[in-house]
Order: sequence, then C-alpha cells, then structure tokens
Amino acid sequence: MIFELVILGNSSATPTLHRFPSAQYLKMLDHHMLIDCGEGTQIQMQRYKIKKSKIKHIFISHIHADHMLGLPGLLFSMSLMQRTEPLHIYGPETLFEILDLFTKNTESELRFEIIKHITNPDVTEVIFEDSTLKVSSFPLYHRIPTTGFLFQEQSKLHKLNTEACEKHNIPFTLYTDIKRGKDFISADGSVHVKNKELTFSSGTPISYAYCSDTMYHKNVIEAVSGVDLLYHEATFMHDKLARAEETKHSTARQAGMVAQQANVKKLIIGHFSSRYDVLDELLAETRAVFENSFIANEGEHFLMNG
Amino acid sequence: MIFELVILGNSSATPTLHRFPSAQYLKMLDHHMLIDCGEGTQIQMQRYKIKKSKIKHIFISHIHADHMLGLPGLLFSMSLMQRTEPLHIYGPETLFEILDLFTKNTESELRFEIIKHITNPDVTEVIFEDSTLKVSSFPLYHRIPTTGFLFQEQSKLHKLNTEACEKHNIPFTLYTDIKRGKDFISADGSVHVKNKELTFSSGTPISYAYCSDTMYHKNVIEAVSGVDLLYHEATFMHDKLARAEETKHSTARQAGMVAQQANVKKLIIGHFSSRYDVLDELLAETRAVFENSFIANEGEHFLMNG
Repeated sequence: MIFELVILGNSSATPTLHRFPSAQYLKMLDHHMLIDCGEGTQIQMQRYKIKKSKIKHIFISHIHADHMLGLPGLLFSMSLMQRTEPLHIYGPETLFEILDLFTKNTESELRFEIIKHITNPDVTEVIFEDSTLKVSSFPLYHRIPTTGFLFQEQSKLHKLNTEACEKHNIPFTLYTDIKRGKDFISADGSVHVKNKELTFSSGTPISYAYCSDTMYHKNVIEAVSGVDLLYHEATFMHDKLARAEETKHSTARQAGMVAQQANVKKLIIGHFSSRYDVLDELLAETRAVFENSFIANEGEHFLMNG
Repeated sequence: MIFELVILGNSSATPTLHRFPSAQYLKMLDHHMLIDCGEGTQIQMQRYKIKKSKIKHIFISHIHADHMLGLPGLLFSMSLMQRTEPLHIYGPETLFEILDLFTKNTESELRFEIIKHITNPDVTEVIFEDSTLKVSSFPLYHRIPTTGFLFQEQSKLHKLNTEACEKHNIPFTLYTDIKRGKDFISADGSVHVKNKELTFSSGTPISYAYCSDTMYHKNVIEAVSGVDLLYHEATFMHDKLARAEETKHSTARQAGMVAQQANVKKLIIGHFSSRYDVLDELLAETRAVFENSFIANEGEHFLMNG
C-alpha cells in the first residue's frame, strides 16, 4: 500500500473522552509523517500501534492548542527512547518559539536535532521534495496564520517495454530517459519512436490535501483542485453558519462544496465541535453536496494504491 | 468528607496507554484544586467526572512536560465553556512565560483572568491562606527548580459546651474567643476557667503533602513531617538507584524511608517509570520500609474526615 492515513483525533478545541484533538499519521510511499499533533497524540499513537521512532516529518498547520499541544511531550518521549535521528518539523515561526522556550527552561536537551522548516502562511510553496514525494503548504483562512498541506506523489517512472525497445534497437544508455517519458529520436533524427510505444503506463500519481482549520474560501478550492483524497474540517452544521463565520471555521455543507467545486475524488470531514455527540447528521449534510464523503473516525485507516 | 483526592495520572515522563502523566484533583474543605496538570488531564477530568468549572486553584510543581503540558488546553477549554471567574495558578516564573507565549500568539484571549502566584523553589512559604485552609510550597530537589505543596487544614474552632458556659456565666460576647481556644478569665481576674471545660474537641486538623519529582533529601523529610497523607514519587525500583540519582528521582524504597522518617500516617507512591508494567513490586519495596503505603492508581479516591 503506497498510501495509508490513520486518524488519531478528530475533535475541535475541546477534546471529549472519546474524541481526541487533531492529529493524523500518514505513510506515503516510504515516508512516515504526522500531520498536526493535538494533546494526547503520543497516547493515540500507542493505541493505534504507530511507532514514534519511524516518524521523520511532522507538519503543524497552526499553533492553536488543539493542533500542537501534543508536540513537546512527543519530542521528550522520543528523546527518552534514545532517538538520535534528526526530525524535520514544518510549522509557523511561533511554533519554534514555544518549543525553544520548553527546551531552554526544562534543561532537558533533546538527544536529536530538530530541523526547523518555517512555513509561510501567505503563499503556496514546496516545503519538502525528493524523488518520490512532494509536499507543499498553502494558505488557509483562519483566525491566526494557518497553512494546509498538499502531499503529491512524484510522477512515476514508466515501466520499460523491453521487447519494443529491442525491436527498435534503443541503446541501453537511453533506457533511463525512456522511463522518464522521453520519446526516442535517433542521433541523425531519422527515427522517431513515441514513448508510449516503448513503455507501459505506471498509473497516475496520487495526492492528498489536508485543511485543518479554515473558513470556506475560493483559494482553498484552487489549492486542493483534483486531489484523490481531501481532508477538510467541518466544525459545525450549516445552521451554525454565523458561528462558523465568526470563528473562521467551515460547516459540513461547506466542506462538501469545497470537495465538489475542487473536483476531488473523495472527502473526509473532521474537527467536529464537541456539541455533536453523533456525527451522522454532519455526514448527511456533506453528502447532500458531495456523495463520496466519509467521517474521519478515530482509528480509521484510509488507504490508496497507485 | 472534608478531604477527597482523586488520582488522574501516575506515570513519569513517557505516558503509556493506561497511565497518564501526573495530575491530581484535590477537594479539601470547600476548595476545589488541581495539583500538576500533565498532558491529557482535561480528558481524565471528563473520565472521572470532575467539573472544570469548579476548579479555582491550580498548583504546578515544575515545568517538565509531564507535569504541565495539559494546562494550556485546559485553560482554553475553560474559556470556551464561558468561564468568567478568575483562576489562581501557582508555579515557577517560567510557567507563566510559556502560558503568555500561548495566549499572545494564538490571539485566543481567555475570557477569565489568571491570577499568577510565582513560587520560590528556594524557600518554604505560605502561598494561599484563608480561614479553613493553608497551602505552602517547599523546595524539592530535582533537575530544574521544583516545589512540593503542603495542604493544611487550619486549626478548627472548638465546639461550644453551652451548658458549661451558662453554668460559669460566660458572657455571649466572649463565645467567639472561647471557640478559638481561649480560657475564660473574669474582668477582675478572680475566676479562671480552662478552655477544655467550656468546649468539646473538634478533632485534629488534617494535612496532605505532595512531592512530585525529587531525589531523597533530608529537607523533604522535615517539610512533610507528621502529615496525615503523603504523596511521594517512586520512579524506580531500588536496583535502579544509580539511575534515580542521575535523574534526581527517588526509588520506591526511598519513598518509604521518607514516610517512615517523617512519621507520616499514610503514604501514596506514584510517577512510575513506564518500564514497570506491574506495580506490585514497587509497592512491596515501599511497604518493606513503611507498611501503610498504597499505589496512586489512576482513578483512585483517597478520603479523609476530620
């Protein structure tokens, strides 16, 4: 499985006994990541058997308590467990001020290095990239500086059709170019073979977008356009639209509108107000606009293969 | 019941799935208080049905993550629940720096006032006092500035023996003095009635001492001398004495020694290292030194009546 998302919490500001605040574990290709880290995340990781030692990247959308309060405790636990491998943390500048204050005053120096990546809530930009995965942050529209995160599989190498390559006498030295999608053109330009005759398709790269806390906004629709899977907050039912606008959150209907207008394949909603004991009505409201919607139930796994 | 202590967490640094970090709820006389507030305390308060709105005083021993990381989230939840009543927080200066950084940067102003009481880890001093209760902080000996807390019922008013007072013709205006323990001496000095002839005993005031994180130290023994109930950390078994000394913690045997040497009535041990799955051996080690010892099991209630 090249994509595995585990919901560790789905509650908004006030956690309830059975709903922890925002946190997700994402394994995508060979990368093990956390997205947001509300109070109790390290306990939830134990519950759902996610190894702390595997996590190499942590993405924090903003510094409201319910999205980051679990981070200092998690870092100290990692240190106690003898971690020495550097950890990449992506978040707003103020997040690192808070973490610095903790480590400075507790005289509990971490045994490993934190590599800080300060996000810019005003622009869309690539914040991590390697040969298989690209992660971008993009502006969300909340009460304080907040970013969403877009995780995109890099374009895959094509699978070589060896028989076709041999038939056309393609030199071995060009095989890498062919896998990357290039046509074959002979040195003197006399022979031109289209790439699709020399390769098999490897499927379309997959993508996931995470929108933690935001009001309904056209720029968000643009940022998440066409993703395979979208997580979008749905703090309130639409009858609480005034409250959603006041607190710069979205309603369940608005989450569905974003998914529908952005033409995504599948939607997960979360970050529910603690006033809702049962979540069926929130989902029904979202599905009235965008059918392929699901609740981000704690402990649930969302899987994709390329 | 004039004393009710509820254990909300008993784990040291790394929380485990079934052991939350340090936090206790204490109802003593008419005061509702929290002592330490590790990650997840607000969730534990829901689990054990302790109303956030009732808490008026929070005492934080030191700013290691496992003793205070639950505080910002709890404060924001109290605010979301429309609290307007001021909240007294007692802790080291750095605790308030961290809280200030949270409230400043999250633009989530609390709806209620926090009244800051900065503790001094170098001296024993009274930090709260009214007609029924006195709370003192006293130095503990840990890696960073840390205080213990001593909760003492004030000397009780005696119950008036009305019949005896009438027999000796004590004026009504002196009844308050008699209740406070004074003898009766007539204006001309000719009559002297001992207080114990005019009152019934109201029992001895009760006391509770809390020692969160500390190495074994003679000053701690002195500070908790003679209390009815002592909570003392017991992070390790005594075979890990070297590790305890290195990290400035106590062993289960040392906790028993403190209780025995301080001549307390009853001991509760907690703050166990996550390496111990079963706590029986820790308790056995403590009981070998001080018999009337108990484990601070999560959810357990310790009660006293005056």
